[in-house]
Amino acid sequence: MRSRLFATLSLAFTVMAPTFLNSSVSHVRGDEGMYLFNDLPREVLKERYDFEPSQQWAHDLQLSSVRFNSGGSGSFVSSNGLVLTNHHVASDTLQKISSKEQNLIEDGFLAESIDDEIKAPDLELNVLIEIVDVTERVEKAVTTPDDAEAAAKQRQAEFNAIESQSFDATGLRSDVVTLFGGARYHLYRYKKYTDVRLVWAPETAAAFFGGDADNFEYPRYNLDATLMRVYEDGEPAKIDHFLRWSPTPVAAGDLVFVSGHPGRTQRIFTVEALEYLRDHRLPFVLDFLRRKEILFQQYRLESEEAARRGRDELFGLQNARKAYTGMLAGLQDPQTIAGRREQQDRLTAEASANPDLKPLVKAWDEIAEIQSEKAEQLPRSVSLRSDVFQYALSILLLAQEDQKPNADRLAEYSDAGRDSLLTRLTSTAPLYDDVQRVKLADEIALLLEHRGMSDPLVVEILAGRSPHEVAAEIIDGTRLDDSETRRELIEGGLDAVLSSDDPAIKLARIIEPEYRRLRSIDDQLSEREKQAYAEVARVTTAVEGTTGYPDATFTLRLAFGAVKGYRENGSDIEPTTDFAGAFQHAAEHAGQEDFDLPASWMEAKEENKIDLSTQLNFVCTADIIGGNSGSPVVNRDGALVGLIFDGNIQSLTSDYLYTDQQARAVSVSGVGIQEALRAIYNAKDLADQLGR
Amino acid sequence: MRSRLFATLSLAFTVMAPTFLNSSVSHVRGDEGMYLFNDLPREVLKERYDFEPSQQWAHDLQLSSVRFNSGGSGSFVSSNGLVLTNHHVASDTLQKISSKEQNLIEDGFLAESIDDEIKAPDLELNVLIEIVDVTERVEKAVTTPDDAEAAAKQRQAEFNAIESQSFDATGLRSDVVTLFGGARYHLYRYKKYTDVRLVWAPETAAAFFGGDADNFEYPRYNLDATLMRVYEDGEPAKIDHFLRWSPTPVAAGDLVFVSGHPGRTQRIFTVEALEYLRDHRLPFVLDFLRRKEILFQQYRLESEEAARRGRDELFGLQNARKAYTGMLAGLQDPQTIAGRREQQDRLTAEASANPDLKPLVKAWDEIAEIQSEKAEQLPRSVSLRSDVFQYALSILLLAQEDQKPNADRLAEYSDAGRDSLLTRLTSTAPLYDDVQRVKLADEIALLLEHRGMSDPLVVEILAGRSPHEVAAEIIDGTRLDDSETRRELIEGGLDAVLSSDDPAIKLARIIEPEYRRLRSIDDQLSEREKQAYAEVARVTTAVEGTTGYPDATFTLRLAFGAVKGYRENGSDIEPTTDFAGAFQHAAEHAGQEDFDLPASWMEAKEENKIDLSTQLNFVCTADIIGGNSGSPVVNRDGALVGLIFDGNIQSLTSDYLYTDQQARAVSVSGVGIQEALRAIYNAKDLADQLGR
Repeated sequence: MRSRLFATLSLAFTVMAPTFLNSSVSHVRGDEGMYLFNDLPREVLKERYDFEPSQQWAHDLQLSSVRFNSGGSGSFVSSNGLVLTNHHVASDTLQKISSKEQNLIEDGFLAESIDDEIKAPDLELNVLIEIVDVTERVEKAVTTPDDAEAAAKQRQAEFNAIESQSFDATGLRSDVVTLFGGARYHLYRYKKYTDVRLVWAPETAAAFFGGDADNFEYPRYNLDATLMRVYEDGEPAKIDHFLRWSPTPVAAGDLVFVSGHPGRTQRIFTVEALEYLRDHRLPFVLDFLRRKEILFQQYRLESEEAARRGRDELFGLQNARKAYTGMLAGLQDPQTIAGRREQQDRLTAEASANPDLKPLVKAWDEIAEIQSEKAEQLPRSVSLRSDVFQYALSILLLAQEDQKPNADRLAEYSDAGRDSLLTRLTSTAPLYDDVQRVKLADEIALLLEHRGMSDPLVVEILAGRSPHEVAAEIIDGTRLDDSETRRELIEGGLDAVLSSDDPAIKLARIIEPEYRRLRSIDDQLSEREKQAYAEVARVTTAVEGTTGYPDATFTLRLAFGAVKGYRENGSDIEPTTDFAGAFQHAAEHAGQEDFDLPASWMEAKEENKIDLSTQLNFVCTADIIGGNSGSPVVNRDGALVGLIFDGNIQSLTSDYLYTDQQARAVSVSGVGIQEALRAIYNAKDLADQLGR
Repeated sequence: MRSRLFATLSLAFTVMAPTFLNSSVSHVRGDEGMYLFNDLPREVLKERYDFEPSQQWAHDLQLSSVRFNSGGSGSFVSSNGLVLTNHHVASDTLQKISSKEQNLIEDGFLAESIDDEIKAPDLELNVLIEIVDVTERVEKAVTTPDDAEAAAKQRQAEFNAIESQSFDATGLRSDVVTLFGGARYHLYRYKKYTDVRLVWAPETAAAFFGGDADNFEYPRYNLDATLMRVYEDGEPAKIDHFLRWSPTPVAAGDLVFVSGHPGRTQRIFTVEALEYLRDHRLPFVLDFLRRKEILFQQYRLESEEAARRGRDELFGLQNARKAYTGMLAGLQDPQTIAGRREQQDRLTAEASANPDLKPLVKAWDEIAEIQSEKAEQLPRSVSLRSDVFQYALSILLLAQEDQKPNADRLAEYSDAGRDSLLTRLTSTAPLYDDVQRVKLADEIALLLEHRGMSDPLVVEILAGRSPHEVAAEIIDGTRLDDSETRRELIEGGLDAVLSSDDPAIKLARIIEPEYRRLRSIDDQLSEREKQAYAEVARVTTAVEGTTGYPDATFTLRLAFGAVKGYRENGSDIEPTTDFAGAFQHAAEHAGQEDFDLPASWMEAKEENKIDLSTQLNFVCTADIIGGNSGSPVVNRDGALVGLIFDGNIQSLTSDYLYTDQQARAVSVSGVGIQEALRAIYNAKDLADQLGR
């Protein structure tokens, strides 16, 4: 499970009404919920599990939780800066620090000493320090709500101002987060770590045992774990809040908590918004993902080195394709929409009968109308998914936006986000010409397929050449593959960018006006949607008096649940697996790709080093989604018992529908990680640091 | 290279004007051309190669050439019925006669004796006996050309009548073939073989050495060959016309001929017809192919047996995807269309200036209009690509069409084609439930994605269930996976079919009215296109006086060319390879998938049995396309020197544009096949039969 999201789809909404906290939670099922740390589900936990989290418990957990800005979660697990996350979250970094000579992603890594730890080229880790409600300030700033273009700008200007003032005042990374689809705005302040180093990673054969075949399946036997370390001033950071490591395996019925960063859900999309997903967005994205998957498969066939270079990107595509396939299949079940329609009809009927609420019911029509407009925009995008092009476009936009006052800038070019942006733009991760040619050529071909060969922009880009020729000329000619060149161009400002004869910058200059035109349309649709969902929120709160949690926004949330098996095709699926099961699973799938355990495991087994009864993976009912990968799982005492790495196939509908019938979150057991470090990876010293 | 065509796209056209045979052939480049056996390019051959084919030479070659109705070509190579074709043409049969216990497709096969030869469950081989021009008769039958619906029926009625009368008179399979897009109609009479048995097949590792990575590449080292044998009355058939086997390898500059069945080309599509391919049909088909490729990859991951079951279908999809990707890339080069537009503008301008021709110029507009209508129809199709559904729909349509006079029936249910249809419908090839569920569920999901969830047909099919549920119910409940059940249902006639409670038949009954409605639209578009292309033909002939060959129609054609290397990226590519090269290629790609030569090869090499300098593959400039797979390559003496199995990547545009700059046809050498049989496969007896 990854949060490699292809575009912001965060326009979600649910109902938050603090005054109703004591009322019945009618729309929350079982252990559903991704709760805000400043609005924890105390009543629910008390009622369902007789558990009352203390201030200290929640505070420690919050400050031990880490966000990977590459798209995942993690946690501090030692006083000397160790961060636990998934191998598949770290794989972006593993890929970037690997080379033809040293394939860390496949072969794994263990730093012999502190000096051997390898710095990630562009990783930024965030720890949430504080949340401030800024709803009133944001709403006051929007003075002309009926003019979507102006309103979108007013709202963005206020975001930029709030973030910039917060950053100046605290020195902390400051992000305004839109919650409940537009009903609430919170300012999140993060401590930031940008010196992050690799300490230990297992082999892909252990981390991704079972490969694409087993992905999203259960039972599982994966050591999808990696340890990194954060540094400050060149030294391992001293960490006050970190998780203790529970020495006890979990057991069926145990209450557990997941503290992580779910990326995006659409739990209370209107029916029409779900239909837009089903009929337009998901089929469109799936065609895209399958196209790229085949493209990367083909590229990787070229040589062993090509296979290495294309590895992480292909795995990300396969993962997303499998996740979206499950999501779409769920929406294509007529019962899914039928259930939601019944609920929506009941709500709007009751509202229509109430004179105060009746004027708000048009919000549902407004949302339906916005979906049609989104469907039209879908194939227009000019934001080519090419690393070189994205660098070029960002550098151009940054130089242009820098000419404006902070308040008027596009979100990602505001003062507050500048450091994070520069970290990304000056990454030293290698860009390989052959991969870049393949990617850019396909993106240009896709552009002309979507917009047509006679589209003026397409004609200008091609200038009589084929997509392959254009891509080859740009990649052969550009110097943006060099981090230092990018830095110089950024420092040179607008003049340098406008006079650059770099072919990638030239392409960005051709595309930029259309990019801005489409961006403005998107921003206006988004603004209208925020306003409409705010009205839907008012209606729902008034009619149903529900409470709960906002849809996921890649910010810190607390989920909870029980360790619990389930029934599938008439069989009981046990909630936990062990190392013995891993070896048995390998034997049962002998000869199949990705079902060979690595040599380190086979040797440790032969030498009887492993306690085969040690717990390896387990499932629980906690409510998670892509972005939660790498989240710590803790027990009532706040001690680490596991590491989220996947959801089962039945959980793939949880973007829009949580159930605890069969859907489960899948974790690596904390005791399993300890056993692997000690018995397989000869990393006793490292294991001893965990939790201390 | 395969001819797994996804729909009839044979509405192609070029200029045939026998009276101009002596004039310059202005539109034919180099060795371009797929010539009719009743209109061979005698002048061109004389002029370019000083070669004059004798009547006997052509007659022998025609009667030695074999069409595989599964989609490929072959040739008689012995007096006792041996047929040479590609492993990848035979793979459809190899797949069907394999089982969990005996994987012939991967492991290869050699019949120890005649008794061990294995019968194919549904193969039909055709040998072209005679061609009769029926153009006048067909044209006379169309009395109301402006009424497309009536005209399409009149034309089809005449086809059915001609074929039926021919079959009654001769006992030969009789097909009316539309040539030059509608300017000419020929009746083709075939001798038919339906008892076809497997004699020898190498391992996939030898036949498809290099896998998907090397497919459409060159240099190559593939033993893509298989031997089958035709039987009559339970005995090996006595064959009068078969190819002798040349003992000499080919050399650069040698004139060679390819006699085979190219499936489909679009050489003289109008610009607007090519734009329809580029902007609509090819992107649509590629999205489809990539979707199915991923679907089959996923299915095959389930187990070793699943990998076996899904093997041939996946390889066919990969092959088609790679071919269409190359076709589309060629059309996306602005120069391709620009060149064609110049030619078309010149032609229509000259015609417009001529009072006799001016009225015909509107044919180009008519063709453009038809393309728009085709683009609209593209996603409407209800002809689910599911074996079980196709059986059900065919059985239903057959029963219904049988109620009508022969003249009024849909083409494939006319009297003349009945035997071939029954061969297919009562195939004993196994249908596996798990594969069938996966395929049908995906087809239903695709149907609702294309037609929308509120489409009445979709609503009726789903009846509140998900696509997966519908597919599971149908596949679990149907008995159409049994050949005998299908035979009984066919024999039961319309009453049996209409009263059947088989869920696959029920699905066919739901879909059948919409299928007929869309079929009628397609037939009308096709009729209008035939008329329009006939007018384009008249104009072209009048203005340019050119001659040549009709676009490919999966009927017997003669191509010719020279054995010839080419330059690529500044290097000379030699025209021939040898066994030593195969071992070197394997060594250079050690560790990569599909680059291991089979054990039989490695052992034979170790034991020094192979003459490593023996020629293995070669390229020539002959004009081929999908469907030519398995075609014999013969020399001036009519003796076999090779076996077509692929085109290089530069030839992928040859659907619409032949060039001999770099595009090449790739063959297995005849001497290479002999060497492999003797030195690697211990099949001296079999090798001795070849050419005798």
